[in-house]
Amino acid sequence: MPKYVFDFVEGGKDLKDLLGGKGANLAEMTRLGLPVPPGFTISTEACRAYLAGGTVPDGLFDQVNAHLQLVEERLGKALGDPANPLLLSVRSGGKFSMPGMMDTVLDIGLTDVSVQGLAAQSGDPRFAWDSYRRLIGMFGKTVCGVPGEAFEHELDAHKSHAGVATDAELSTADLRHLVDAYKKVFHDHTGREFPQAPHEQLYLAIEAVFKSWNTERAVLYRRQERIPQDLGTAVNVMAMVFGNLGPDSGTGVAFTRDPATGVRGVYGDYLANAQGEDVVAGIRNTVPLQELERIDRHSHHQLLSIMDKLEHHYRDLCDIEFTIERGKLWMLQTRVGKRTPAAAFTIAAQLVDEGVIDLDEALRRVTGAQLAQLMFPRFDRAAAPEPLAVGVPASPGAASGRVVFDAARAAERATAGDKVILVRRETNPDDLPGMIAAQGILTSRGGKTSHAAVVARGMGKTCVCGADALDVDTDSARFTVDGTVVSEGDVVSIDGATGEVFLGEVPVHPSPVARYFEGEEPAGQDALLDAVHRLMLHADRSRRMEVRANADTGGDAARARRFGAEGIGLCRTEHMFLGERRALVERLILAETAADADGEREAALAALLPLQRADFVEIFEAMDGLPVTVRLIDPPLHEFLPPLEELTAKVARAEALGQDPGRDGALLGAVRRMHEQNPMLGLRGVRLGLVVPGLFAMQVRAIAEAAADCAARGRSPRPEIMVPLVAAVQELEAVRAEAERILDEIGGLPHVRIGTMIEVPRAAVTAGEIAGAAEFFSFGTNDLTQLGWGFSRDDVEGTFFPRYLGMGIFGVSPFESLDVPGVGRLVRMAADEGWAARPDLKIGVCGEHGGDPDSIHFFHAIGLDYVSCSPFRVPVARLEAGRAAVASAAAGSDSR
Amino acid sequence: MPKYVFDFVEGGKDLKDLLGGKGANLAEMTRLGLPVPPGFTISTEACRAYLAGGTVPDGLFDQVNAHLQLVEERLGKALGDPANPLLLSVRSGGKFSMPGMMDTVLDIGLTDVSVQGLAAQSGDPRFAWDSYRRLIGMFGKTVCGVPGEAFEHELDAHKSHAGVATDAELSTADLRHLVDAYKKVFHDHTGREFPQAPHEQLYLAIEAVFKSWNTERAVLYRRQERIPQDLGTAVNVMAMVFGNLGPDSGTGVAFTRDPATGVRGVYGDYLANAQGEDVVAGIRNTVPLQELERIDRHSHHQLLSIMDKLEHHYRDLCDIEFTIERGKLWMLQTRVGKRTPAAAFTIAAQLVDEGVIDLDEALRRVTGAQLAQLMFPRFDRAAAPEPLAVGVPASPGAASGRVVFDAARAAERATAGDKVILVRRETNPDDLPGMIAAQGILTSRGGKTSHAAVVARGMGKTCVCGADALDVDTDSARFTVDGTVVSEGDVVSIDGATGEVFLGEVPVHPSPVARYFEGEEPAGQDALLDAVHRLMLHADRSRRMEVRANADTGGDAARARRFGAEGIGLCRTEHMFLGERRALVERLILAETAADADGEREAALAALLPLQRADFVEIFEAMDGLPVTVRLIDPPLHEFLPPLEELTAKVARAEALGQDPGRDGALLGAVRRMHEQNPMLGLRGVRLGLVVPGLFAMQVRAIAEAAADCAARGRSPRPEIMVPLVAAVQELEAVRAEAERILDEIGGLPHVRIGTMIEVPRAAVTAGEIAGAAEFFSFGTNDLTQLGWGFSRDDVEGTFFPRYLGMGIFGVSPFESLDVPGVGRLVRMAADEGWAARPDLKIGVCGEHGGDPDSIHFFHAIGLDYVSCSPFRVPVARLEAGRAAVASAAAGSDSR
Repeated sequence: MPKYVFDFVEGGKDLKDLLGGKGANLAEMTRLGLPVPPGFTISTEACRAYLAGGTVPDGLFDQVNAHLQLVEERLGKALGDPANPLLLSVRSGGKFSMPGMMDTVLDIGLTDVSVQGLAAQSGDPRFAWDSYRRLIGMFGKTVCGVPGEAFEHELDAHKSHAGVATDAELSTADLRHLVDAYKKVFHDHTGREFPQAPHEQLYLAIEAVFKSWNTERAVLYRRQERIPQDLGTAVNVMAMVFGNLGPDSGTGVAFTRDPATGVRGVYGDYLANAQGEDVVAGIRNTVPLQELERIDRHSHHQLLSIMDKLEHHYRDLCDIEFTIERGKLWMLQTRVGKRTPAAAFTIAAQLVDEGVIDLDEALRRVTGAQLAQLMFPRFDRAAAPEPLAVGVPASPGAASGRVVFDAARAAERATAGDKVILVRRETNPDDLPGMIAAQGILTSRGGKTSHAAVVARGMGKTCVCGADALDVDTDSARFTVDGTVVSEGDVVSIDGATGEVFLGEVPVHPSPVARYFEGEEPAGQDALLDAVHRLMLHADRSRRMEVRANADTGGDAARARRFGAEGIGLCRTEHMFLGERRALVERLILAETAADADGEREAALAALLPLQRADFVEIFEAMDGLPVTVRLIDPPLHEFLPPLEELTAKVARAEALGQDPGRDGALLGAVRRMHEQNPMLGLRGVRLGLVVPGLFAMQVRAIAEAAADCAARGRSPRPEIMVPLVAAVQELEAVRAEAERILDEIGGLPHVRIGTMIEVPRAAVTAGEIAGAAEFFSFGTNDLTQLGWGFSRDDVEGTFFPRYLGMGIFGVSPFESLDVPGVGRLVRMAADEGWAARPDLKIGVCGEHGGDPDSIHFFHAIGLDYVSCSPFRVPVARLEAGRAAVASAAAGSDSR
Repeated sequence: MPKYVFDFVEGGKDLKDLLGGKGANLAEMTRLGLPVPPGFTISTEACRAYLAGGTVPDGLFDQVNAHLQLVEERLGKALGDPANPLLLSVRSGGKFSMPGMMDTVLDIGLTDVSVQGLAAQSGDPRFAWDSYRRLIGMFGKTVCGVPGEAFEHELDAHKSHAGVATDAELSTADLRHLVDAYKKVFHDHTGREFPQAPHEQLYLAIEAVFKSWNTERAVLYRRQERIPQDLGTAVNVMAMVFGNLGPDSGTGVAFTRDPATGVRGVYGDYLANAQGEDVVAGIRNTVPLQELERIDRHSHHQLLSIMDKLEHHYRDLCDIEFTIERGKLWMLQTRVGKRTPAAAFTIAAQLVDEGVIDLDEALRRVTGAQLAQLMFPRFDRAAAPEPLAVGVPASPGAASGRVVFDAARAAERATAGDKVILVRRETNPDDLPGMIAAQGILTSRGGKTSHAAVVARGMGKTCVCGADALDVDTDSARFTVDGTVVSEGDVVSIDGATGEVFLGEVPVHPSPVARYFEGEEPAGQDALLDAVHRLMLHADRSRRMEVRANADTGGDAARARRFGAEGIGLCRTEHMFLGERRALVERLILAETAADADGEREAALAALLPLQRADFVEIFEAMDGLPVTVRLIDPPLHEFLPPLEELTAKVARAEALGQDPGRDGALLGAVRRMHEQNPMLGLRGVRLGLVVPGLFAMQVRAIAEAAADCAARGRSPRPEIMVPLVAAVQELEAVRAEAERILDEIGGLPHVRIGTMIEVPRAAVTAGEIAGAAEFFSFGTNDLTQLGWGFSRDDVEGTFFPRYLGMGIFGVSPFESLDVPGVGRLVRMAADEGWAARPDLKIGVCGEHGGDPDSIHFFHAIGLDYVSCSPFRVPVARLEAGRAAVASAAAGSDSR
């Protein structure tokens, strides 16, 4: 029989797989000699055996009893002893913390008999009966599934009968009656008496923890978070200590540094004469931890010393839970503490200065997601009113605007020039046009995977959802919060990083971190900016991957360069065909039906050439000396024409009224002729280039002439030509031959590399062949995701993505973070086979995943040469590329 | 220095790589002791060396001279000998026969001097000068690139001057003048005199053959046919023999059996006093080979005996070219002969009966493509007039209809109930609606990869293209052939298997082979049907793969069963929602906006349930005892609504006229709400099933209830449930859980297997995971091709496919034959990883590739369990599955 039960003295913090996070840290504190109440942990292995067999594994309770006896001996008390009863807490604790699982049962061991013993032993009968009442309620609810409201109903009835407002005012007699009432509730709902055998209470509680691993909510949570379903949870059994034994008792939580700002010095709350759950329930106000010094100087001193010890031991900010029982301090929990993004950077730098960690470790402790949050513009807190409500922070950003309650109205007002916030109970695909038109989206229902949240994140739009204090009445076009009525046209502000909703317009200011990256000198010494600066420096020093930007204009390119981009990884040329140039593109398209089709087409292209050349000159200037990867035109030409539906309606109306539709008629003809069922799968990219004579040639000529022009003026242009949508090496060979001919003809340039996007699955699986004609690969992970999964982002983010995220089919949208097992496998395969065929092949990524932290780690791990992302994400990518390098160096797992 | 030159006595038929097809067979005949003029072959290796170095490899001409000397010694003549000149022919001959390469130069060795010698030696000055004239023309054209018309122009001028109609009537004097004129043409175009050194003529001709390997047309042809570009060609140099030395000379071609019907007995044509090229030029009519017995009994006898020997030696139908020079027979070429599909089957069976080959070999000698041709309905030859014209047989079938000359008119007349044939000079994407409406397509320009050909094959529509005798005048809506005018509305018939175009309606009758498969007993003994019957039996006995059919109705299922299907591999359920049931689907869709959405939806589904159940009962009855794989509904729901454009125009018109659009308005709302940019990449397949509550459940219930109903009546229904468009195992798990619940609830069924389509690239790369939830895989190779390449068939077959085929980017459309290196790699990977995860996983294919011969061989090679195809293709698939099995058994390469 395996060893299932471990005394706290037997474990340690590195045994989280076996003992769960909580158990491992309790053991660690015990080993450090800190005052932890005695207890033991039942391993995750026992839970797995239970779940596999459906019954408690043989011998488990024998081991529990043996360890319990050790606890009893150490404390000189016994479970169920009528005179001197030992009470126990039972807590779940898996490797990862997980909502939806059974949390805690306190005071196990109390019965009709032992409650008397506890009263006598503690000298506090009220305390004893209150504890018994708590046990029956908690046990009933979490172990036996009795609805909590049934107990609360009795509690309210008793308070009302006694004429008191709070639990604390109930007398011992009231509590004895309450115990009877709770026992009746228990019996009514379970059909059995509340168990009077203390060991039975313990066994049932342990089994309940095991079972709670598989509650629907826990399963769903794990599916969404991609936590394996077969880990199982540990169970922590610990002797009770009591913070509610009088004014010399109490309970508190504390952090070893300020988790909001990172400022040095402990930070916490204390509540005298209370148990931990009272703090959560908010029955009385806590006092700052400093107050404890006045209340119990000795315990305060001891606590500070323990926290110091823990921080040095864990080498990081720790948070703790503690209880003082009649002047004796007990540690109930510790872990590495959560913190804000600003605190994460500040603390990491502090710990380096303090000699606790090195820069590599500091870099591992901050994340790109935190940096991105620090870069968002934010509301001016000083100017902000109290929030009207707080919802789920679903998509970061700070947005203000006039509230509107339906999509059509949103689009209408936005067209009229208003900034609007779309407010809905929840959104659905019909709301898409309104979501596009709005500055931000606010809903009263739904969480981070609701329709509103998913779609907003996809659009990069600010969103607060599930603000359930809002009573939204779309019919009357208004919402109500606590009596405040907000009607259509009123202004609100929403903070997508905190979930706050404010009435009125709150001033927004750019974040200091973003200003720092823009190159502004901070006014005075700023600990955060200093920390960011030092960690960015270290990231840049450490990373192997280059970071480039996706930029289509000289302005974007210049900004990207300020943000640290080392070139342009994707310069899209289709934007260059918009605006007044659209007329030339229409001419190019209509050329196909002209009498002299070739002549017309050539004339249209000739007119576009100097405009394109000027575009490139501007970009090469801004990126002087750095590579600029220009992607030849990608979208289908009909995208430059007015929409079919619009033209159809116009022409139909004209015809119905007997009018000549004129030019609209000709355009409608062209749109119909070029209409595609699935334009994403149609005539675009390299196909377009091979079908429309002269189109790619014009672009290559514009690039070469622009570069020659810059070079002639002493600049160092480094253009690279990238062919989109290649699926077969033969396509690339055909374009390459034409491009090389033009480059040779113009001459006077250093070697211009010609490469290809890998964005079509077939390109990934034939990458070895394609490498024969490509000097570089750039993964277009957006298209590769769309084609790999067979869905188009435009069509799915509003329809089934929210449902899929809700069902846990995705943990995260594959457009946000690369789908490693699926799309990632194609990427890895293509990279490996590309290098095998051409060892000096340069390989990067220019999809949006190039700026996503998790994806960057994957790209580093498989050995890619660079990532390219939007200018604003460049610092994030630099940081994560550095983190990936130090992490894999630490793990000894660098690939290339 | 390698050995580059091989005397005919040194080679043999198995040396095609080195000597090319022609050279290897000449050597084989020489080794067999047949009368082959002496000669030698310059190897493909020499050609490769030439192409790599750009010059003739060192020592090559020394080897040529050495071998030439042997020939001279054997014949007692010498190249360039003024008195007794040896003349040579030079012919190219690669491993594969290939248009676009230099073909032949005859009579090398003639000069101003040796022509006199030849005249004296042959006693026929006219022959000598005619030969010299031929040499200059052929050499000028093929070696030096002089335009052929320049020589023809002179020839015509001389005929006209001499007042004669044919070359044969030109006198010796005329021919001497013609030689002078040809030499002048040569000089005018090349800037040099016609070479008077016979060795120089030979060397230049050899070099020209080498160079012709890389002409644009040859390169393109190889790219299209996927023939490696680096094989190189061999060059055959042979002593000339002359069929034009008088009435006791002549030339002919022959087959050892009738290549049209397979009937035993030689079959050929003979032309006295002529050279081979005269036969091709059709100057005089040939006579049947039997006539030779009368003309030259000895040669005839000798020829029959040689042909008999060759057929036994090659163990197959051979075709030959021969020449008789003054009563002496010479063999100039032989190869395994081309034959019609009917002959292929008949001959294969005959050879088995004759003990020449075994059944395995017979099976390898017929193809599914041939069988498919035999199954097409055909024109009644007896009732057919002379063809009006013959074009390229681009897409098989027999179609009759009224000619129309533009797409709109085609659609119009088709709507009015006419059968139409769309006639165009060539087609383009604008013609698509007309091509869809027409019975067949006829063009006067373009080959097998023209727009018309590619699109028609994609649609399975009859097409003859490139019928260049047609003068098409679309403006006047008529075409002219040789003075016959055919106007819009006139009836024509086109045969897509032969390229013939007939005036009027030719009666069509079903092919006897199709009737045989339908189970009709042939009237009397029929050699073809007997052969088909025996070879199908052997294929069925030999094949490892099951063959199923794609069938959606009881009628289709019954037909498929008659054709030998062993189950249904794909039963699509979306067709079951059309017709009068469309109203229920509209109700289902509009339910989403109803006040009681859930209730309305359930009511709509409840009404659909009994209809679906009845569909399945019919199919299970027809396939009693055999598996029926039902695919749950796949297309997006909005496909069941009227098109957006149509509704938009209707509503716009109504509104412009101040009318209420009524129900159209509501439908337009739904269509707009559900509109997708790329419906193929939208809410369909498993996604639809997971998003619309109860939809899949209704279908599963209908399947289970139908099966229970059949089982209760003593039948053996074997339904399997297939989930479409799965990309992640989690999707399949979710559907599976619901389906199993319903199956359990209904009960009374044997185990119903639940599996998935593998049609999304991500499913292929995560097949190992997906196999955890799937009992079978069925590759949807159509979608896998679309997503793997990133193009949708609907959008591309009409736009860039013809261009891509023309450029050689594809050899064949990947929708016709599986793209093995790309899509095939995904299929193989998924199959291997599926089996690794679940060894008893059943894996098949239900895309259209399931009926394509080449693809079937691939599916066999990677070990798949079955293919499923349209009922009509079932016999083809059975045959090819058998062929694949015997081929891989012969190669010792069976996989599983």
